[in-house]
Amino acid sequence: MTDGAEVTRRVGIDVGGTKAQGVALDADGVVLLTANRATPRGHDSLGPLLDVLADLADELGCVDEIGIGVPGLVTRDGVLRAAPNLDGVADFAIGEQVADRLGVVAAVDNDATCATVAEWQLGVAAGRREVILVTLGTGIGGGMVADGTVHRGANGFAGEFGHMIVDPDGPPCPCGRRGCWERYASGSGLAMLARDAAAGGRLRDVVRHAGGDPQAVRGEHVQAAARTGDPEALAVVDEFARWVALGLSNLTNAFDPEMFVLGGGLAAGADLYLEPIVRWFGEFLYQPDLRPMPAVEFARWGPLAGAVGAALLPGLAR
Amino acid sequence: MTDGAEVTRRVGIDVGGTKAQGVALDADGVVLLTANRATPRGHDSLGPLLDVLADLADELGCVDEIGIGVPGLVTRDGVLRAAPNLDGVADFAIGEQVADRLGVVAAVDNDATCATVAEWQLGVAAGRREVILVTLGTGIGGGMVADGTVHRGANGFAGEFGHMIVDPDGPPCPCGRRGCWERYASGSGLAMLARDAAAGGRLRDVVRHAGGDPQAVRGEHVQAAARTGDPEALAVVDEFARWVALGLSNLTNAFDPEMFVLGGGLAAGADLYLEPIVRWFGEFLYQPDLRPMPAVEFARWGPLAGAVGAALLPGLAR
Repeated sequence: MTDGAEVTRRVGIDVGGTKAQGVALDADGVVLLTANRATPRGHDSLGPLLDVLADLADELGCVDEIGIGVPGLVTRDGVLRAAPNLDGVADFAIGEQVADRLGVVAAVDNDATCATVAEWQLGVAAGRREVILVTLGTGIGGGMVADGTVHRGANGFAGEFGHMIVDPDGPPCPCGRRGCWERYASGSGLAMLARDAAAGGRLRDVVRHAGGDPQAVRGEHVQAAARTGDPEALAVVDEFARWVALGLSNLTNAFDPEMFVLGGGLAAGADLYLEPIVRWFGEFLYQPDLRPMPAVEFARWGPLAGAVGAALLPGLAR
Repeated sequence: MTDGAEVTRRVGIDVGGTKAQGVALDADGVVLLTANRATPRGHDSLGPLLDVLADLADELGCVDEIGIGVPGLVTRDGVLRAAPNLDGVADFAIGEQVADRLGVVAAVDNDATCATVAEWQLGVAAGRREVILVTLGTGIGGGMVADGTVHRGANGFAGEFGHMIVDPDGPPCPCGRRGCWERYASGSGLAMLARDAAAGGRLRDVVRHAGGDPQAVRGEHVQAAARTGDPEALAVVDEFARWVALGLSNLTNAFDPEMFVLGGGLAAGADLYLEPIVRWFGEFLYQPDLRPMPAVEFARWGPLAGAVGAALLPGLAR
């Protein structure tokens, strides 16, 4: 690229626990190309991971800059401190390594922060200045735009909403504490609420579909039954939505966003979840007479959000 | 003041429910003068309130600009939407009114935001870029500095930390919900924890000092007994500190500050509270191996914080 020329192709890769999803966007944010590879696993997988990133970058036509999203704590200078779903990764200067290997400028951030950037720059939160994205997946992650800039926090670790404690006597969390928000308001949370209901003798049709064992009930079973109008499944969805809304209300009191964007795997069930989440959010909202309720929308970008946001990272730094 | 001259005197007034506290600072932030008046109460108190503000401004030597702190929700353009402790105040464009009356530039913000500004500009958080101030008083308020600027949120309502729900089955809150953080971690919370302990047969010495009625036990009684080493009072202080720390941990996961400043009336008991709060905060911290624990300090400015921060508001806007 010659000096002063516009970047015409933006390439991003979202490194997940099972696959690395890449995307190339044109200057207007239109998707030109997508590509993915399996994420290398096992000890000594960092070399193979760099190989995969180089290979994807090449396929996607990366010329002068690239953005990478990673599932873990990323410091403000692009070091991946830890990533539970990437084997052997600790204190990995992934941005520096990719930049050296490819001879391009590389920007790295947490995958949920990337998803936030995607929705804020090219998605449902375009044009907003105060936005919180909450990813409802196996756990809960997120990101935040404050006063029109991405808020990373002192260490780059802002947005770990899932481990806000909402019930100190609640179920144990793998993080070592109890009653974290993601125990209730994530995919795992939905499954737990469903198993509790099944163990209490409810959700009979759902249990039958899960093979007869209440402990085998998963979120997908509830979702499928709720779509057929099963009232017991809808009651579990309502309970789940109440927990989601409780956390949104807490975040509203703290940060006063104008909009929440809900992403992650559960966004596929937006048709089921949006109405009860918004209804409960209205119930929980503090001083509703004095403030507008923040907008709540599900994410636009779905499984591509991390890669699209990653592709936009180098542009944010300019 | 002639064009281009520096502002040499900064005047701020913190309008509380019982008194309006004013301060004049020199250009270096040194307190030149303080003055206060009773806050007018009753219907039609807005006229008398403006009189009080004009009178204080005059006494404090206000020439060309003034800052006002008010206890309530203040919009980003300086309208006081509501203030439970100021009679008859609703949608009051207090900044505009003060500016018209005094012929000066007036800046208005929430009192907890003012306290945040005071500690960030001239207090224990000087030089920091990511700060959360939590006021532990009758309730809990607060304010936030994100990436080196005051974070007000979409409506100016950020920092209402006290109404984050930390136990949905907890005691009812006057806000209409249950288990808000300020039910436990404020002055009212300390008193509730003490009454619960007393009703359970503990805190015998404290109950004696409170006149023999467990329901008459207040936070001050616990604090006094804890200072004498009463182990039952110290246990209540520890429980209180645990609730404070739980909320700090939640805010850390969401926002990743480098420092918490604790202000409000309970700051007078900093010697008792700081050690157990920091200890419990360490217990609650998510992924402590990967991140430094945010600093926790009690505020420097005490009861003057709101007025000092108010005095600094016009300068922030420049």
